Amino acid sequence: MARTVNPQKHHARRQQIMYAAAELFAAQGFDGTTTAQICAAAGISPGNLFHYFSSKRALFAAIITNDGEDETAQQLAVAHEADDPLAGLLQFVEHLAAAAAEPAVPGLVLEAMLQARRHPQLAQLMGDESDAEQAGVAGLLARARQAGAIDSELDIAEAAAWIMALVSALYLQAATDERFDAGRQLGNLRRTVHRFLIP
Amino acid sequence: MARTVNPQKHHARRQQIMYAAAELFAAQGFDGTTTAQICAAAGISPGNLFHYFSSKRALFAAIITNDGEDETAQQLAVAHEADDPLAGLLQFVEHLAAAAAEPAVPGLVLEAMLQARRHPQLAQLMGDESDAEQAGVAGLLARARQAGAIDSELDIAEAAAWIMALVSALYLQAATDERFDAGRQLGNLRRTVHRFLIP
Repeated sequence: MARTVNPQKHHARRQQIMYAAAELFAAQGFDGTTTAQICAAAGISPGNLFHYFSSKRALFAAIITNDGEDETAQQLAVAHEADDPLAGLLQFVEHLAAAAAEPAVPGLVLEAMLQARRHPQLAQLMGDESDAEQAGVAGLLARARQAGAIDSELDIAEAAAWIMALVSALYLQAATDERFDAGRQLGNLRRTVHRFLIP
Repeated sequence: MARTVNPQKHHARRQQIMYAAAELFAAQGFDGTTTAQICAAAGISPGNLFHYFSSKRALFAAIITNDGEDETAQQLAVAHEADDPLAGLLQFVEHLAAAAAEPAVPGLVLEAMLQARRHPQLAQLMGDESDAEQAGVAGLLARARQAGAIDSELDIAEAAAWIMALVSALYLQAATDERFDAGRQLGNLRRTVHRFLIP
Protein backbone atom coordinates (compact mmCIF):
# COMPACT_ATOMS: atom_id res chain seq x y z
CA MET A 1 0.00 0.00 0.00
CA ALA A 2 1.48 3.29 -1.09
CA ARG A 3 1.95 5.82 1.63
CA THR A 4 0.07 8.98 0.75
CA VAL A 5 1.21 12.36 1.92
CA ASN A 6 -1.34 15.00 2.75
CA PRO A 7 0.39 18.23 1.64
CA GLN A 8 -1.42 20.41 4.18
CA LYS A 9 -0.59 18.08 6.99
CA HIS A 10 3.01 17.86 5.78
CA HIS A 11 3.24 21.67 5.72
CA ALA A 12 1.70 22.00 9.18
CA ARG A 13 4.12 19.43 10.59
CA ARG A 14 7.07 21.28 9.00
CA GLN A 15 5.92 24.51 10.66
CA GLN A 16 5.54 22.74 13.99
CA ILE A 17 9.09 21.38 13.76
CA MET A 18 10.41 24.80 12.75
CA TYR A 19 8.78 26.48 15.76
CA ALA A 20 10.14 23.91 18.18
CA ALA A 21 13.62 23.98 16.67
CA ALA A 22 13.74 27.79 16.54
CA GLU A 23 13.35 27.99 20.30
CA LEU A 24 16.10 25.45 20.86
CA PHE A 25 18.46 27.11 18.39
CA ALA A 26 17.84 30.50 20.00
CA ALA A 27 18.49 29.19 23.49
CA GLN A 28 21.31 26.73 22.86
CA GLY A 29 22.79 27.74 19.54
CA PHE A 30 22.93 25.68 16.37
CA ASP A 31 25.87 23.52 17.43
CA GLY A 32 24.46 23.01 20.91
CA THR A 33 21.17 21.62 19.67
CA THR A 34 20.82 17.97 18.67
CA THR A 35 18.29 16.50 16.26
CA ALA A 36 17.14 14.25 19.12
CA GLN A 37 16.24 17.36 21.16
CA ILE A 38 14.40 18.81 18.19
CA CYS A 39 12.39 15.61 17.70
CA ALA A 40 11.50 15.51 21.39
CA ALA A 41 10.45 19.16 21.45
CA ALA A 42 8.41 18.78 18.25
CA GLY A 43 6.82 15.55 19.46
CA ILE A 44 7.96 13.42 16.54
CA SER A 45 9.75 10.12 16.71
CA PRO A 46 13.52 10.18 16.25
CA GLY A 47 14.48 9.69 12.63
CA ASN A 48 11.17 11.08 11.45
CA LEU A 49 12.72 14.54 11.21
CA PHE A 50 14.37 13.67 7.91
CA HIS A 51 11.01 13.15 6.22
CA TYR A 52 10.60 16.90 6.66
CA PHE A 53 14.11 18.37 6.44
CA SER A 54 17.17 16.85 4.80
CA SER A 55 19.50 17.97 7.62
CA LYS A 56 19.70 20.07 10.76
CA ARG A 57 21.31 22.77 8.64
CA ALA A 58 18.46 22.69 6.09
CA LEU A 59 16.00 23.02 8.96
CA PHE A 60 17.91 26.03 10.31
CA ALA A 61 17.93 27.64 6.84
CA ALA A 62 14.19 27.03 6.51
CA ILE A 63 13.60 28.81 9.82
CA ILE A 64 15.77 31.77 8.85
CA THR A 65 14.07 32.20 5.47
CA ASN A 66 10.62 31.44 6.85
CA ASP A 67 10.44 28.32 4.68
CA GLY A 68 10.84 30.34 1.52
CA GLU A 69 7.60 32.24 1.95
CA ASP A 70 8.23 35.57 0.33
CA GLU A 71 6.47 37.70 2.88
CA THR A 72 8.75 40.63 2.03
CA ALA A 73 7.39 40.82 -1.52
CA GLN A 74 3.81 40.72 -0.22
CA GLN A 75 4.45 43.45 2.36
CA LEU A 76 6.25 45.56 -0.24
CA ALA A 77 3.31 45.34 -2.59
CA VAL A 78 1.01 46.52 0.21
CA ALA A 79 3.38 49.36 1.12
CA HIS A 80 3.55 50.56 -2.47
CA GLU A 81 -0.23 50.86 -2.56
CA ALA A 82 -0.45 53.13 0.48
CA ASP A 83 -1.95 56.52 -0.38
CA ASP A 84 0.66 58.21 1.80
CA PRO A 85 4.08 57.03 0.55
CA LEU A 86 5.83 57.88 3.82
CA ALA A 87 3.22 55.94 5.82
CA GLY A 88 3.68 53.00 3.45
CA LEU A 89 7.42 53.07 4.01
CA LEU A 90 7.09 53.27 7.79
CA GLN A 91 4.66 50.36 7.73
CA PHE A 92 7.17 48.24 5.79
CA VAL A 93 9.96 49.15 8.22
CA GLU A 94 7.73 48.17 11.10
CA HIS A 95 7.03 44.86 9.42
CA LEU A 96 10.79 44.24 9.19
CA ALA A 97 11.31 45.16 12.83
CA ALA A 98 8.26 43.66 14.50
CA ALA A 99 9.65 40.19 15.18
CA ALA A 100 12.40 41.69 17.36
CA ALA A 101 9.78 41.84 20.10
CA GLU A 102 9.12 38.09 19.95
CA PRO A 103 10.96 36.17 22.67
CA ALA A 104 13.15 33.76 20.70
CA VAL A 105 13.71 35.76 17.52
CA PRO A 106 16.58 38.10 18.44
CA GLY A 107 18.64 35.19 19.77
CA LEU A 108 17.93 33.30 16.59
CA VAL A 109 18.98 36.23 14.40
CA LEU A 110 22.23 36.56 16.31
CA GLU A 111 22.86 32.82 16.04
CA ALA A 112 22.19 32.98 12.29
CA MET A 113 24.66 35.86 11.98
CA LEU A 114 27.30 33.80 13.77
CA GLN A 115 26.60 30.67 11.72
CA ALA A 116 26.78 32.71 8.51
CA ARG A 117 30.38 33.62 9.33
CA ARG A 118 31.32 29.98 8.86
CA HIS A 119 28.76 28.80 6.33
CA PRO A 120 28.82 30.59 2.98
CA GLN A 121 25.53 29.07 1.81
CA LEU A 122 23.67 30.45 4.81
CA ALA A 123 25.48 33.77 4.41
CA GLN A 124 24.29 33.88 0.81
CA LEU A 125 20.67 33.12 1.76
CA MET A 126 20.70 35.80 4.45
CA GLY A 127 22.51 38.28 2.19
CA ASP A 128 19.93 37.78 -0.57
CA GLU A 129 17.11 38.31 1.88
CA SER A 130 18.54 41.49 3.35
CA ASP A 131 19.44 42.78 -0.13
CA ALA A 132 15.81 42.32 -1.15
CA GLU A 133 14.65 44.13 1.98
CA GLN A 134 17.10 46.99 1.47
CA ALA A 135 16.12 47.32 -2.19
CA GLY A 136 12.49 47.38 -1.06
CA VAL A 137 13.22 50.21 1.37
CA ALA A 138 15.11 52.11 -1.36
CA GLY A 139 12.16 51.72 -3.74
CA LEU A 140 9.74 53.07 -1.14
CA LEU A 141 12.13 55.95 -0.39
CA ALA A 142 12.23 56.84 -4.08
CA ARG A 143 8.44 56.85 -4.21
CA ALA A 144 8.24 59.03 -1.09
CA ARG A 145 10.78 61.44 -2.51
CA GLN A 146 8.84 61.79 -5.73
CA ALA A 147 5.87 62.79 -3.60
CA GLY A 148 8.01 65.36 -1.76
CA ALA A 149 7.48 63.50 1.53
CA ILE A 150 11.15 63.10 2.42
CA ASP A 151 14.17 65.40 2.48
CA SER A 152 15.43 65.84 -1.09
CA GLU A 153 19.02 66.08 0.17
CA LEU A 154 19.08 62.48 1.38
CA ASP A 155 21.05 59.94 -0.65
CA ILE A 156 18.51 57.18 -1.16
CA ALA A 157 20.92 54.23 -1.20
CA GLU A 158 22.69 55.49 1.91
CA ALA A 159 19.42 56.23 3.70
CA ALA A 160 18.16 52.72 2.88
CA ALA A 161 21.37 51.18 4.31
CA TRP A 162 20.97 53.33 7.43
CA ILE A 163 17.35 52.28 7.96
CA MET A 164 18.40 48.63 7.63
CA ALA A 165 21.07 49.26 10.27
CA LEU A 166 18.42 50.72 12.60
CA VAL A 167 16.25 47.63 12.15
CA SER A 168 19.22 45.34 12.83
CA ALA A 169 20.03 47.40 15.91
CA LEU A 170 16.72 46.41 17.42
CA TYR A 171 17.36 42.66 16.93
CA LEU A 172 20.99 42.68 18.02
CA GLN A 173 20.49 44.89 21.03
CA ALA A 174 17.60 42.70 22.16
CA ALA A 175 19.80 39.62 21.68
CA THR A 176 22.76 40.97 23.64
CA ASP A 177 21.25 43.21 26.35
CA GLU A 178 18.55 41.56 28.42
CA ARG A 179 17.35 44.93 29.75
CA PHE A 180 16.65 46.19 26.24
CA ASP A 181 12.89 46.07 25.65
CA ALA A 182 12.50 45.68 21.89
CA GLY A 183 8.70 45.89 22.12
CA ARG A 184 8.80 49.30 23.75
CA GLN A 185 11.64 50.47 21.49
CA LEU A 186 9.57 49.81 18.35
CA GLY A 187 7.93 53.18 18.98
CA ASN A 188 11.33 54.84 19.12
CA LEU A 189 12.32 53.16 15.86
CA ARG A 190 9.22 54.56 14.18
CA ARG A 191 9.83 58.05 15.57
CA THR A 192 13.50 57.84 14.56
CA VAL A 193 12.91 56.75 10.97
CA HIS A 194 10.09 59.23 10.47
CA ARG A 195 12.03 62.20 11.81
CA PHE A 196 15.21 61.13 10.02
CA LEU A 197 13.43 61.21 6.67
CA ILE A 198 11.19 64.24 6.67
CA PRO A 199 12.45 67.52 5.16
CA MET B 1 72.23 43.90 38.27
CA ALA B 2 68.58 44.57 38.75
CA ARG B 3 66.65 44.96 35.58
CA THR B 4 65.07 48.39 35.53
CA VAL B 5 61.85 49.05 33.72
CA ASN B 6 61.22 52.38 32.12
CA PRO B 7 57.48 52.89 32.69
CA GLN B 8 56.98 55.07 29.62
CA LYS B 9 58.77 52.60 27.41
CA HIS B 10 56.80 49.75 28.97
CA HIS B 11 53.53 51.59 28.30
CA ALA B 12 54.53 52.39 24.71
CA ARG B 13 55.44 48.77 24.09
CA ARG B 14 52.11 47.61 25.53
CA GLN B 15 50.29 49.96 23.16
CA GLN B 16 52.33 48.69 20.23
CA ILE B 17 51.45 45.09 21.05
CA MET B 18 47.78 46.01 21.49
CA TYR B 19 47.64 47.67 18.07
CA ALA B 20 49.29 44.72 16.35
CA ALA B 21 47.11 42.18 18.16
CA ALA B 22 43.90 44.14 17.53
CA GLU B 23 44.35 43.84 13.78
CA LEU B 24 44.97 40.12 14.02
CA PHE B 25 42.00 39.52 16.33
CA ALA B 26 39.76 41.55 14.02
CA ALA B 27 40.86 39.64 10.93
CA GLN B 28 41.25 36.11 12.32
CA GLY B 29 39.22 36.07 15.50
CA PHE B 30 40.49 35.46 19.01
CA ASP B 31 40.75 31.69 18.70
CA GLY B 32 42.34 31.90 15.25
CA THR B 33 45.17 34.13 16.44
CA THR B 34 48.26 32.66 18.09
CA THR B 35 50.61 34.42 20.48
CA ALA B 36 53.43 33.64 18.01
CA GLN B 37 51.59 35.63 15.33
CA ILE B 38 51.09 38.49 17.76
CA CYS B 39 54.78 38.56 18.69
CA ALA B 40 55.79 38.52 15.02
CA ALA B 41 53.37 41.33 14.13
CA ALA B 42 54.47 43.42 17.13
CA GLY B 43 58.13 42.77 16.44
CA ILE B 44 58.91 41.25 19.83
CA SER B 45 60.65 37.98 20.51
CA PRO B 46 58.44 34.99 21.31
CA GLY B 47 57.91 34.65 25.03
CA ASN B 48 58.48 38.35 25.57
CA LEU B 49 54.75 38.95 25.27
CA PHE B 50 54.17 37.76 28.82
CA HIS B 51 56.26 40.59 30.26
CA TYR B 52 53.46 42.81 29.03
CA PHE B 53 50.29 40.73 29.28
CA SER B 54 49.65 37.72 31.48
CA SER B 55 47.76 35.85 28.75
CA LYS B 56 46.27 36.21 25.28
CA ARG B 57 42.91 36.71 26.97
CA ALA B 58 44.28 39.50 29.19
CA LEU B 59 45.70 41.17 26.09
CA PHE B 60 42.31 40.94 24.37
CA ALA B 61 40.59 42.44 27.43
CA ALA B 62 43.16 45.27 27.50
CA ILE B 63 42.37 46.07 23.86
CA ILE B 64 38.63 46.05 24.43
CA THR B 65 38.86 48.32 27.48
CA ASN B 66 41.56 50.50 25.92
CA ASP B 67 44.00 49.41 28.64
CA GLY B 68 41.76 50.76 31.38
CA GLU B 69 42.08 54.37 30.25
CA ASP B 70 38.82 55.95 31.22
CA GLU B 71 38.32 58.03 28.12
CA THR B 72 34.56 57.88 28.62
CA ALA B 73 34.79 59.79 31.90
CA GLN B 74 36.99 62.43 30.30
CA GLN B 75 34.68 62.85 27.32
CA LEU B 76 31.66 62.98 29.61
CA ALA B 77 33.21 65.76 31.65
CA VAL B 78 33.83 67.74 28.46
CA ALA B 79 30.27 67.13 27.24
CA HIS B 80 28.81 68.32 30.54
CA GLU B 81 30.65 71.61 30.17
CA ALA B 82 29.22 72.40 26.74
CA ASP B 83 27.18 75.62 26.76
CA ASP B 84 24.57 73.95 24.59
CA PRO B 85 23.49 70.72 26.37
CA LEU B 86 22.18 69.10 23.19
CA ALA B 87 25.44 69.85 21.37
CA GLY B 88 27.36 68.36 24.29
CA LEU B 89 25.27 65.20 24.12
CA LEU B 90 25.68 64.85 20.35
CA GLN B 91 29.42 65.33 20.74
CA PHE B 92 29.56 62.51 23.30
CA VAL B 93 27.51 60.22 21.05
CA GLU B 94 29.89 60.97 18.17
CA HIS B 95 32.80 60.12 20.41
CA LEU B 96 31.20 56.73 21.14
CA ALA B 97 30.54 56.09 17.46
CA ALA B 98 33.66 57.50 15.81
CA ALA B 99 35.80 54.36 15.97
CA ALA B 100 33.26 52.48 13.84
CA ALA B 101 34.89 54.19 10.85
CA GLU B 102 38.34 52.77 11.65
CA PRO B 103 39.17 49.69 9.58
CA ALA B 104 39.74 47.01 12.21
CA VAL B 105 37.44 48.22 14.98
CA PRO B 106 34.00 46.91 13.92
CA GLY B 107 35.44 43.42 13.39
CA LEU B 108 37.03 43.62 16.80
CA VAL B 109 33.79 44.73 18.46
CA LEU B 110 31.91 41.83 16.85
CA GLU B 111 34.61 39.39 17.92
CA ALA B 112 34.43 40.75 21.48
CA MET B 113 30.67 40.30 21.48
CA LEU B 114 31.09 36.68 20.39
CA GLN B 115 33.82 35.99 22.95
CA ALA B 116 31.70 37.55 25.67
CA ARG B 117 29.03 34.91 25.06
CA ARG B 118 31.45 32.28 26.32
CA HIS B 119 33.58 34.25 28.78
CA PRO B 120 31.69 35.80 31.68
CA GLN B 121 34.67 37.92 32.80
CA LEU B 122 34.89 39.61 29.43
CA ALA B 123 31.10 39.97 29.34
CA GLN B 124 31.30 41.70 32.72
CA LEU B 125 34.04 44.10 31.57
CA MET B 126 32.11 44.99 28.44
CA GLY B 127 28.84 45.26 30.32
CA ASP B 128 30.39 47.64 32.85
CA GLU B 129 31.78 49.78 30.07
CA SER B 130 28.53 50.01 28.17
CA ASP B 131 26.60 50.62 31.41
CA ALA B 132 28.90 53.57 32.11
CA GLU B 133 28.36 54.91 28.60
CA GLN B 134 24.61 54.50 28.79
CA ALA B 135 24.49 56.18 32.20
CA GLY B 136 26.58 58.99 30.69
CA VAL B 137 24.10 59.42 27.86
CA ALA B 138 21.20 59.40 30.34
CA GLY B 139 22.92 62.10 32.43
CA LEU B 140 23.42 64.31 29.39
CA LEU B 141 19.80 63.71 28.35
CA ALA B 142 18.62 64.83 31.80
CA ARG B 143 20.73 67.98 31.51
CA ALA B 144 19.36 68.70 28.03
CA ARG B 145 15.80 68.16 29.18
CA GLN B 146 16.26 70.57 32.06
CA ALA B 147 17.34 73.13 29.48
CA GLY B 148 14.23 72.38 27.41
CA ALA B 149 16.38 71.20 24.51
CA ILE B 150 14.74 67.80 24.11
CA ASP B 151 11.19 66.50 23.90
CA SER B 152 9.75 66.40 27.41
CA GLU B 153 7.70 63.32 26.52
CA LEU B 154 10.74 61.10 26.04
CA ASP B 155 11.51 58.52 28.71
CA ILE B 156 15.15 59.24 29.50
CA ALA B 157 16.24 55.70 30.37
CA GLU B 158 14.55 54.31 27.28
CA ALA B 159 15.95 57.05 25.04
CA ALA B 160 19.45 56.39 26.39
CA ALA B 161 19.09 52.66 25.64
CA TRP B 162 17.87 53.51 22.15
CA ILE B 163 20.80 55.84 21.45
CA MET B 164 23.19 53.11 22.59
CA ALA B 165 21.46 50.71 20.18
CA LEU B 166 21.99 53.22 17.35
CA VAL B 167 25.70 53.46 18.16
CA SER B 168 26.02 49.66 18.28
CA ALA B 169 24.21 49.47 14.94
CA LEU B 170 27.01 51.42 13.31
CA TYR B 171 29.66 48.99 14.58
CA LEU B 172 27.75 45.81 13.88
CA GLN B 173 26.53 46.80 10.45
CA ALA B 174 30.08 47.81 9.49
CA ALA B 175 31.32 44.46 10.79
CA THR B 176 28.77 42.35 8.93
CA ASP B 177 28.06 44.24 5.67
CA GLU B 178 31.13 45.19 3.69
CA ARG B 179 29.17 47.69 1.60
CA PHE B 180 28.13 49.65 4.72
CA ASP B 181 30.28 52.80 4.92
CA ALA B 182 30.42 53.66 8.62
CA GLY B 183 32.38 56.85 7.96
CA ARG B 184 29.66 58.26 5.72
CA GLN B 185 26.90 56.96 8.01
CA LEU B 186 28.25 58.93 10.99
CA GLY B 187 26.46 61.96 9.52
CA ASN B 188 23.22 60.01 9.44
CA LEU B 189 23.71 58.94 13.05
CA ARG B 190 24.12 62.58 14.08
CA ARG B 191 21.03 63.64 12.11
CA THR B 192 19.08 60.70 13.52
CA VAL B 193 19.90 61.30 17.18
CA HIS B 194 19.38 65.05 16.89
CA ARG B 195 15.98 64.76 15.22
CA PHE B 196 14.92 61.92 17.49
CA LEU B 197 15.48 64.07 20.56
CA ILE B 198 14.22 67.53 19.72
CA PRO B 199 10.68 68.52 20.71
